[in-house]
Amino acid sequence: MFEVEQERIDMLEAIEEFLTRKQFAQLRALLATLEAPDVAILMEDLSMEQVPLVFRLLGKEDAAEVFVELDSDQQELLIQGFSNAELKDILDEMYVDDTVDIMEEMPASVVKRILQHSDPQMRRSINELLKYPEDSTGSIMTTEFVDLKSDMTVSDAFRRIRLTGPDKETINIGYVIDVRRRLMGIVTIRQLLLAKPDEIIGDIMNSNPLSASTLDDQEATARALAKYDFLALPVVDTEHRLVGIVTVDDAIDVLQEEVTEDMEIMAAISPTDKPYLKSSIWETVKARTPWLLILMISSTFTSQIISTFEDALAACTVLTIYIPMLMGTGGNCGTQASVTIIRGISLDEIDFSDIWDIVWKESRVAIGCGAFVGAANFIKLLVLDKWILGNDDITMQVALVICLAMICTVLFAKLVGSTLPLLAKKLGFDPAVMAAPLLSTMVDAISLLIYFQIASMALGI
Amino acid sequence: MFEVEQERIDMLEAIEEFLTRKQFAQLRALLATLEAPDVAILMEDLSMEQVPLVFRLLGKEDAAEVFVELDSDQQELLIQGFSNAELKDILDEMYVDDTVDIMEEMPASVVKRILQHSDPQMRRSINELLKYPEDSTGSIMTTEFVDLKSDMTVSDAFRRIRLTGPDKETINIGYVIDVRRRLMGIVTIRQLLLAKPDEIIGDIMNSNPLSASTLDDQEATARALAKYDFLALPVVDTEHRLVGIVTVDDAIDVLQEEVTEDMEIMAAISPTDKPYLKSSIWETVKARTPWLLILMISSTFTSQIISTFEDALAACTVLTIYIPMLMGTGGNCGTQASVTIIRGISLDEIDFSDIWDIVWKESRVAIGCGAFVGAANFIKLLVLDKWILGNDDITMQVALVICLAMICTVLFAKLVGSTLPLLAKKLGFDPAVMAAPLLSTMVDAISLLIYFQIASMALGI
Repeated sequence: MFEVEQERIDMLEAIEEFLTRKQFAQLRALLATLEAPDVAILMEDLSMEQVPLVFRLLGKEDAAEVFVELDSDQQELLIQGFSNAELKDILDEMYVDDTVDIMEEMPASVVKRILQHSDPQMRRSINELLKYPEDSTGSIMTTEFVDLKSDMTVSDAFRRIRLTGPDKETINIGYVIDVRRRLMGIVTIRQLLLAKPDEIIGDIMNSNPLSASTLDDQEATARALAKYDFLALPVVDTEHRLVGIVTVDDAIDVLQEEVTEDMEIMAAISPTDKPYLKSSIWETVKARTPWLLILMISSTFTSQIISTFEDALAACTVLTIYIPMLMGTGGNCGTQASVTIIRGISLDEIDFSDIWDIVWKESRVAIGCGAFVGAANFIKLLVLDKWILGNDDITMQVALVICLAMICTVLFAKLVGSTLPLLAKKLGFDPAVMAAPLLSTMVDAISLLIYFQIASMALGI
Repeated sequence: MFEVEQERIDMLEAIEEFLTRKQFAQLRALLATLEAPDVAILMEDLSMEQVPLVFRLLGKEDAAEVFVELDSDQQELLIQGFSNAELKDILDEMYVDDTVDIMEEMPASVVKRILQHSDPQMRRSINELLKYPEDSTGSIMTTEFVDLKSDMTVSDAFRRIRLTGPDKETINIGYVIDVRRRLMGIVTIRQLLLAKPDEIIGDIMNSNPLSASTLDDQEATARALAKYDFLALPVVDTEHRLVGIVTVDDAIDVLQEEVTEDMEIMAAISPTDKPYLKSSIWETVKARTPWLLILMISSTFTSQIISTFEDALAACTVLTIYIPMLMGTGGNCGTQASVTIIRGISLDEIDFSDIWDIVWKESRVAIGCGAFVGAANFIKLLVLDKWILGNDDITMQVALVICLAMICTVLFAKLVGSTLPLLAKKLGFDPAVMAAPLLSTMVDAISLLIYFQIASMALGI
């Protein structure tokens, strides 16, 4: 792995030098020392002419592994250049779930060519997997697993694993099915190794294992793998027939994607599948602008509120100066609470039934935070702004108004920030999507109303 | 797994009913159908008296698995109540890395008791693991792995796995070491199963496997497991001696923790280890207040800027109304860019060498976003605010000033938002920690300066 960026740059230079000097044997030896994901990263920085050259120097098995890791433009380029025999070789080495992932990004002509050069069994599996909706468990599962029968002996099972194992994505778990292919149990390779050769699979298997359903949300399935520390989870159809398995490496990928999505949503970006540097200017603009516009609508309310109190502000202009601070603190408090709750919901630590505990807790936290922030602000107003910077408009009364407004804003922002995501979830919306724009709109508007209300009562304006 | 909250509540009621009626046999049978993490979740909602009762109904192996998943208060409660024999039983079933994780949360008296009842080999391992610094790879590894010698035959290896396997965290990979315990290679159970019994391990193993070092950051190691799709990664000391392995389930936990930490930092919260509902009011206040204060300092600058332009604002009060909208849009644009870059850095998709590509890309994106937002705003000002709401202070000139300021603010915010995390990373700081407060301070201040500068030039105030 490239711990330091410099390592990657040095390696790239070495590859380019071997290519220029046509020292292919040395290059082949160098590539053989690298792991597939690292080769793929390096190939991203090579030119369109260099990529096929380097790719053909990889061993058959390595080539398939590297191919899976490349980005789709390079995959397409390579497939276009492949002879039929080369394409068949790569397809034979690839797992069916990876093949399907790649095909989903390819133009129709390439998809057709891939199907033509897959063997019939593979073609059936591909067509099967292509059917499942995006984000479903079916779309991330593989159909290549070890299936066993409950009346096999342990040595029968080993024979079957040795026979069919080379093509399976994992042999660490065997899946026991009945004649109608319904899932009966699972047996780990550890259990098989520690059992006697003539023991019966049905006697040593774990019956009624947890399973996912093909149409389950992929995130729920990935979370289950993480929660139960499973290496793979069986996937069944509506009649409880075993149709595939989801392996932990694919679950990790799903979890990472979902986290990126959550972060994007929290930062007011519509989630996209493509990495930042691969997406076009237009795609990025499209992902970002709608949320900026929605959030701008929110500021229409604040503008309206400020303009309603324009006369009061004109009478006491010093109040204007502290509007950004007040709204900023409100926004920060709201975000602190909402992100905590949204993450808690994602990790299954928090659900709607906790709402009263959360309201009670946030109220106390808000009073704590509000007291500190209010006191610090009071001192800052009188010492820094009035005394040192000489702003004589700040009277004791004004300072008290600002601090009181701040404490109320903190309390309000924390309560809204913590409850909105829970309510959104309860109503069936994504907590992050619903919470962010609504939260900022509400907190901005109400913090101003609180401020002006307190000011007009206390200062009589 | 509890897909629906209701399922969990129903199950809890069933357990409490069995407990009240003292129907322990039925309760034992019910518990046996559940997975350990689910039992642990249910036990969190039981009373202090019920927990030990339910715990004693679990099978020996299940009990250890559930114990590991409980929160530390309940673990401590149970240990206090265990007889020495019970404690020893649990410890025998637990993996050493889990034991160490638990011990790190326990008071000294409990730690001592655990050490007294561990067998000597376990005690040595525990003391070894307790030495590694928090967040190091050493602190998340386990010392229970299958070690093989390169001159063994495949059937020797199987004999060794059958003999030592039951205590190992995984038997899916065997680690080949030399007489000085230096890591020579790895061999998977699949390779062993597909090889002939008399083949020599040294001939079939993968030599020079990737490894982590005990003092490597745990996040880097977890990312490597995710990137290379490994089920476990060997960990070596400074002399390349194999001291442990990190398994994929622990890597997932680390990745989840690190994501939570990143999100907390982005939301201006100091990261804590404890789940939200478990942390005290004071801990939550302590995690949130410092950042609110730091961000308040930022608003000192904005207050200063506004007060400098107080006279201009008094001359043209309509400008005040749009300050929150302008600063809000600037803040949103900055966050959009910075979160995208921070996540890209975390996922190893972006590094410092991409900075010019990013600046070029963000400039174009900013012009695109700015154009849309500016145009929408222009229409809104003239149609909604002036025409419909009848604010006659909005002249064509004022509307142009506001929109021009908005476009400049978007451009500036996106450039600062995208480059700050990269600069922070380059200087060795956490991109998220450095970026958030600095970003909001800079964007707030500069967007106001841009606004007032353009206003005073265009409107002559």
